[in-house]
Amino acid sequence: MRCDVVAVGTELLLGQIVDTNSSFIGEQLAANGIDSLLQVKVGDNLARIETVLRRALADADAVIMCGGLGPTHDDLTREAISAVMGAPLQFDAAVADTIRQLFAARNRTMAENNLRQALVPEGAAVIPQTRGTAPGLICPVVIDGVTKVVYAVPGVPHEMKDMLARAVLPDLRRRSGDPSVIVSRTLRTWGESESGLNERLDPVIADLELAGTPTLAFLASGWDGIKVRLTAKAPTAADADALLAPVEARIREILGSQVFGVDDDTMERVVLQLLRERGWTLGLAESVTGGLVAGRITEVPGASEVFVGSVVSYASEVKFDVLGVDRGPVVSEQAAVQMAVGARRVLHADVALALTGVAGPTEQDGMPVGTLCVAVALPDGRATAHTLRMPGLRDQMRQMSVITALDLLRRELLAMP
Amino acid sequence: MRCDVVAVGTELLLGQIVDTNSSFIGEQLAANGIDSLLQVKVGDNLARIETVLRRALADADAVIMCGGLGPTHDDLTREAISAVMGAPLQFDAAVADTIRQLFAARNRTMAENNLRQALVPEGAAVIPQTRGTAPGLICPVVIDGVTKVVYAVPGVPHEMKDMLARAVLPDLRRRSGDPSVIVSRTLRTWGESESGLNERLDPVIADLELAGTPTLAFLASGWDGIKVRLTAKAPTAADADALLAPVEARIREILGSQVFGVDDDTMERVVLQLLRERGWTLGLAESVTGGLVAGRITEVPGASEVFVGSVVSYASEVKFDVLGVDRGPVVSEQAAVQMAVGARRVLHADVALALTGVAGPTEQDGMPVGTLCVAVALPDGRATAHTLRMPGLRDQMRQMSVITALDLLRRELLAMP
Repeated sequence: MRCDVVAVGTELLLGQIVDTNSSFIGEQLAANGIDSLLQVKVGDNLARIETVLRRALADADAVIMCGGLGPTHDDLTREAISAVMGAPLQFDAAVADTIRQLFAARNRTMAENNLRQALVPEGAAVIPQTRGTAPGLICPVVIDGVTKVVYAVPGVPHEMKDMLARAVLPDLRRRSGDPSVIVSRTLRTWGESESGLNERLDPVIADLELAGTPTLAFLASGWDGIKVRLTAKAPTAADADALLAPVEARIREILGSQVFGVDDDTMERVVLQLLRERGWTLGLAESVTGGLVAGRITEVPGASEVFVGSVVSYASEVKFDVLGVDRGPVVSEQAAVQMAVGARRVLHADVALALTGVAGPTEQDGMPVGTLCVAVALPDGRATAHTLRMPGLRDQMRQMSVITALDLLRRELLAMP
Repeated sequence: MRCDVVAVGTELLLGQIVDTNSSFIGEQLAANGIDSLLQVKVGDNLARIETVLRRALADADAVIMCGGLGPTHDDLTREAISAVMGAPLQFDAAVADTIRQLFAARNRTMAENNLRQALVPEGAAVIPQTRGTAPGLICPVVIDGVTKVVYAVPGVPHEMKDMLARAVLPDLRRRSGDPSVIVSRTLRTWGESESGLNERLDPVIADLELAGTPTLAFLASGWDGIKVRLTAKAPTAADADALLAPVEARIREILGSQVFGVDDDTMERVVLQLLRERGWTLGLAESVTGGLVAGRITEVPGASEVFVGSVVSYASEVKFDVLGVDRGPVVSEQAAVQMAVGARRVLHADVALALTGVAGPTEQDGMPVGTLCVAVALPDGRATAHTLRMPGLRDQMRQMSVITALDLLRRELLAMP
């Protein structure tokens, strides 16, 4: 079954609001084994909403319309559906009572135009409103002799999510002949470009294209790494898992330690877990990233069990005075090692990670923009250092430096006896 | 002129990535007086991409395609455009050289499939790639005897934004018959809720609704503050500015110091500028925000003139040992003041800002989740402290704490003789 999505609102086209609703709906549809192949944003214009809806119904079995159910003159979703159904809008007294009660419950006087929300196309079913004043709608439509369905839900995210779970998804599942589910498995990787991954996985991709399932896609996700996503469609979640497992195993064998996690794993969670397993604390010395590594690590609830702190030594004087780095060039492996050793000492940490580099706009110490020196100081007193060249301009260079440094720490920890 | 947007990527439909690109593009088009009436998300499927593109070209004068320009087998935007143009893809040696050079510059070996990105539809112009490996495309298409244009830009936001500003918008303006421009002026505010701002600006909004122009919109933008955007359409930018100026003046009079900046001003830029004017350096002591304040400040190029560093004292021991905070509860105004004073001393900074609080998941020192204590230590030895209650859960609480603390520092600096 195919269900496309139409998000209604001029503010979406103007970029005043990002359309997160259709993303959420798309995720929910996939989890319920329903394809969503087209998602459209259209403004508050009756003719265009109507056109978009007719087109969507020509391709899809069902359409979820999100937004345009409010009380004001530019809320036109009801009118558009009524036109496409060829059914007049009728005043629903029960819906109107509920609206009046909602206002009374909030001790607010109700503007008359709120009763526009009680208009329901003839033949449509109402999804009772429990959070906002606008009810949702379930509207059967006959297109070329085939009965399809249009759902209308409010644009307010929590109202939409409530009606989607309570009424729309159950109704879609009921109508759907296809009981299959779509299951995705995402391998999180770092250490190679998207194209490099693609080339190494070429044989796998070739086999998958022959088999037709699971499908494989690459998602370059900035400082969250590059994701390799496998998606399988099957009668049950267990069947889908059975399709995914051997492919995942094969990819892991090819990519080895480049796979740092799965699905919602993040590099910082993985690193914190490796340290937690050894009972080690972590300290940082950040220069080029200016606190971004610490900021990311402390996003993880419970990070305080492992992470003690960071010396953000942005000025060279702080590197010299606080961390004990030798006066001289501060973008070098030697400086990075001294920063790491200094952070271990100052913060009383078991392990320390240090970053120094050149984010630009100009070169520094004769090192070009993009240079990153990373050092790791370990409990046995050893310290290792690497010099890398990061891509991009200031922000991208800094973000890539964060995940690259955390990945180097991860590899150090994995390599330890 | 009408320019619609097609965002390409199955991950967008599955809700694994939210399509922020078309929102940004829509905002930019509006700012350039170009209508964008339909924005579509389509998956990595050649037939469907082609269908969506043909439909978009039937309605619009121009189409911006975002994404699907990568090197891998599921990047199909080039092929779809070539099909719609009825023009074969040709290998562009100059583009290929640039790709090779980009890899060489990063000391990385280039996978051969990267050269797929050097394929250009016959008759299309190339937008040279400066940040990523994929070039953009400007593709003239004749539809029913009318010449229209398809632009292709990468899905990586910073690459897209660069090509949009550098090539797409100028080209669109050249082609656009409509000389009118839309000018927006955004007042950046912090210190009051959206509804609170709305109430205080009620009289202004009423007058604008009567006048019809400029229009006013509120954009709650998380830790970037709440934006009040004025938009005017006029024959020339000067005419638009003349419409905006008196309204802006009136709003500033009402909101006073809640307006911290305009348009692209950020709280961190404003604070750095206030410090730069006085020739003062800044140091930080961060606990609850764990480096986020430092990370944000160092996003600003040239921050190093003012910002010396931060002691991210996540563990209480680091507060005691490094910053000299008295042993005891660490979420208090006293602890915040001692952190700020300690940071000034340790980092040799003129001014220090300190944050301590409770991000959750559980309360701390008997203080509930959401508690934020902020202190500022000033060159004259004075230190001030505030306790606030931040909204939301962990991430939101931390982000709100960042802009709130920077705003308190801004107000301290403004209040100084």
